[in-house]
Amino acid sequence: MTANHWQQLITNVNIATMTEGGNGYGEIKGGALAIANGKIAWLGAMADLPSYDAKQLTVIDGQGKWLTPGLIDCHTHLVFGGSRANEFEMRLQGKSYEEIANAGGGIVSTVAATRSASQAELVELGKPRLAALFEQGVTTIEIKSGYGLDTQTEIKMLRTAGELAEQFPVNVQRTFLGAHALPVEFQGRADDYIELVCNEMLPAVAQQGLADAVDVFCESVGFTLAQTKQVFDAAKQHNLAIKVHAEQLSNLGASELAASYDALSSDHVEFLDEAGVEAMAHAGMTAVLLPGAFYFLRETQLPPIELLRKHGVAMAVATDVNPGTSPFSSLTLMLNMACTLFRLTPAEALAGVTCHGAKALGLADSKGQLKVGFDADIALWNINQPAELCYQFGVNSLSALFINGEKVK
Amino acid sequence: MTANHWQQLITNVNIATMTEGGNGYGEIKGGALAIANGKIAWLGAMADLPSYDAKQLTVIDGQGKWLTPGLIDCHTHLVFGGSRANEFEMRLQGKSYEEIANAGGGIVSTVAATRSASQAELVELGKPRLAALFEQGVTTIEIKSGYGLDTQTEIKMLRTAGELAEQFPVNVQRTFLGAHALPVEFQGRADDYIELVCNEMLPAVAQQGLADAVDVFCESVGFTLAQTKQVFDAAKQHNLAIKVHAEQLSNLGASELAASYDALSSDHVEFLDEAGVEAMAHAGMTAVLLPGAFYFLRETQLPPIELLRKHGVAMAVATDVNPGTSPFSSLTLMLNMACTLFRLTPAEALAGVTCHGAKALGLADSKGQLKVGFDADIALWNINQPAELCYQFGVNSLSALFINGEKVK
Ligand SMILES: [Zn+2]
Ligand SMILES: [Zn+2]
Repeated sequence: MTANHWQQLITNVNIATMTEGGNGYGEIKGGALAIANGKIAWLGAMADLPSYDAKQLTVIDGQGKWLTPGLIDCHTHLVFGGSRANEFEMRLQGKSYEEIANAGGGIVSTVAATRSASQAELVELGKPRLAALFEQGVTTIEIKSGYGLDTQTEIKMLRTAGELAEQFPVNVQRTFLGAHALPVEFQGRADDYIELVCNEMLPAVAQQGLADAVDVFCESVGFTLAQTKQVFDAAKQHNLAIKVHAEQLSNLGASELAASYDALSSDHVEFLDEAGVEAMAHAGMTAVLLPGAFYFLRETQLPPIELLRKHGVAMAVATDVNPGTSPFSSLTLMLNMACTLFRLTPAEALAGVTCHGAKALGLADSKGQLKVGFDADIALWNINQPAELCYQFGVNSLSALFINGEKVK
Repeated sequence: MTANHWQQLITNVNIATMTEGGNGYGEIKGGALAIANGKIAWLGAMADLPSYDAKQLTVIDGQGKWLTPGLIDCHTHLVFGGSRANEFEMRLQGKSYEEIANAGGGIVSTVAATRSASQAELVELGKPRLAALFEQGVTTIEIKSGYGLDTQTEIKMLRTAGELAEQFPVNVQRTFLGAHALPVEFQGRADDYIELVCNEMLPAVAQQGLADAVDVFCESVGFTLAQTKQVFDAAKQHNLAIKVHAEQLSNLGASELAASYDALSSDHVEFLDEAGVEAMAHAGMTAVLLPGAFYFLRETQLPPIELLRKHGVAMAVATDVNPGTSPFSSLTLMLNMACTLFRLTPAEALAGVTCHGAKALGLADSKGQLKVGFDADIALWNINQPAELCYQFGVNSLSALFINGEKVK
């Protein structure tokens, strides 16, 4: 690749490459970055820039701003019907759990609203949430199913995610989360439901190519370790990647189990212990930290950040946007919360929404880093130093955004 | 006022009037609101709408959305130079207080940067912060001085706030906070500095009409009760309203003192006790809650919400936007934090940024409520219920905004 083939060139920028294994931000100060055929064709110091014909390509003067990889939100439940504002208000008014349940609160209400909404309605509901993330520099997002809990609605949710992917330039990864909660019609028959997930839902989803990965909510209030294992087996059988909601409220050993299946990530992990961390490290898994849910639920058990650091487990950061426990469509807010609440350094938090977010989605070879040959998903920020992305909130400092080399903002 | 004089009419809306003394939101479902000469001329149920000539006025179909008063951010330090992102990062990297101070951290760095910036530069720095608030429905904002700590720079800050008021349609109230911190050149001579504040700065500010109120940071790390009293006396002498930063880290009795001066508000108040609450209730003062600083500093002492409720003290909610302890230019984020962290009900939180925000600024007779004769500062939201403004964050549901009857969004 020579300068002759470049289509776009961003000059006079500071670059946070976020290259894995690098130190901190992997900074190149006073640099430039060239794009060809949707990929990063060259990056380096301005002084090393090969000569090019300015008439043959689009040159953007970065004016000393900062480039980072486009942000990656690797854990969301962005597609859902209804709102839980009413439940939020009742709880703050001191209403009891029964009163809220009787008024139709809880995940049951989201499942009912998602089942009764059409795919077109779900797309309309999802659009402002995805737009809000996109406006703040998100170029890749994962969207889970899990509010259908029947074959038809789970498929509708994944198709909704597919339709959103067509309406936005954002890259959308889809995860089948049939084992999110037990639907009311299976009350007392969790094993039967898991059988439905493994033998009907998951094969249908796989056959129609609607998901990249499979996820399970393994928790005292979710599914047991044995049930989780069943779903993992079914996922393996259909060659789908594995993820798990684990150790949010207690430690059932789900991360260790997931490690034995070479899962991509274990998410939440507040109650993860050192054995689990070691297992994840050996399997090369990513720990996905979800500070929005921690904040919203006013949890006090912090994820084992020091252990994750010690064993070199990559930490991703995501919104977990969902109506029950993290109604926050803002990944930059999560950057601040990861630092403020979990005490991540700004460089760790930014890695969490770039290189480590990509890793949690199995995209580490093409996204999340500014590196020659990687997809040209790039955010330009009007900031003086990368830490500002984590430090302040409210002012959107996004100045330009590229996805697959196309300028989309 | 009859329908003949109306200039604008918003039909088919649900209205959260936020009238003081009313219950909750003061809801009018299926209503309309008319504007004449910048004021609210009529509001009520659609069924009671007087006949009007649609050709004589602008009619906006509210399509079942919600109207609230424009939001009021009654406590900000929005004008400042420099950034404290570096200090934020160093702290998270485990650097010691000394290392951070040696690297130029702390309020000292903000004072130095604010002193060396020109007024034009401060305006440019303030614009994106004010724009971010405005985009989310803020129609009135208070801006404090307090990073100059010398006469010239304090005046420059207040003039900057005045210039921002000219560049945005937002109503700006200005507060002189010379007694914010002790400047380095007065180290060990706090009384001398307070004399400068009272005898030079405050008279100059008053004479030039640069402030509506005077504020003091009364705290172990700020100024003593005796010094605070001196500033209050000077404020009284110049007929300026009084506010106080009180009981954030300890209880020095500043709220009680402020009550004896008929102050408008006491702000932060985490350590306020019942005697202080009673004094504030008798004086009709407002307690300004600042959840952003509570969150950012990871405080654990909650403000005495139950006592404030019991004694009927109005609770306002504000951003406190400032580089050291609340770098958040988002009042809607504070709505969520007031509920999530302080357990305010959504109706209380919304009152905190409307009627009670107005009260904290001495504007209770003209702003913060949707009421005939009040300023037509009005926000139209694409929501199904007012609690959604507090519950979710990220999607900006602002649909239209009016200030003094003019449609500014
Ligand atoms: Zn989740
Ligand atoms: Zn303050």
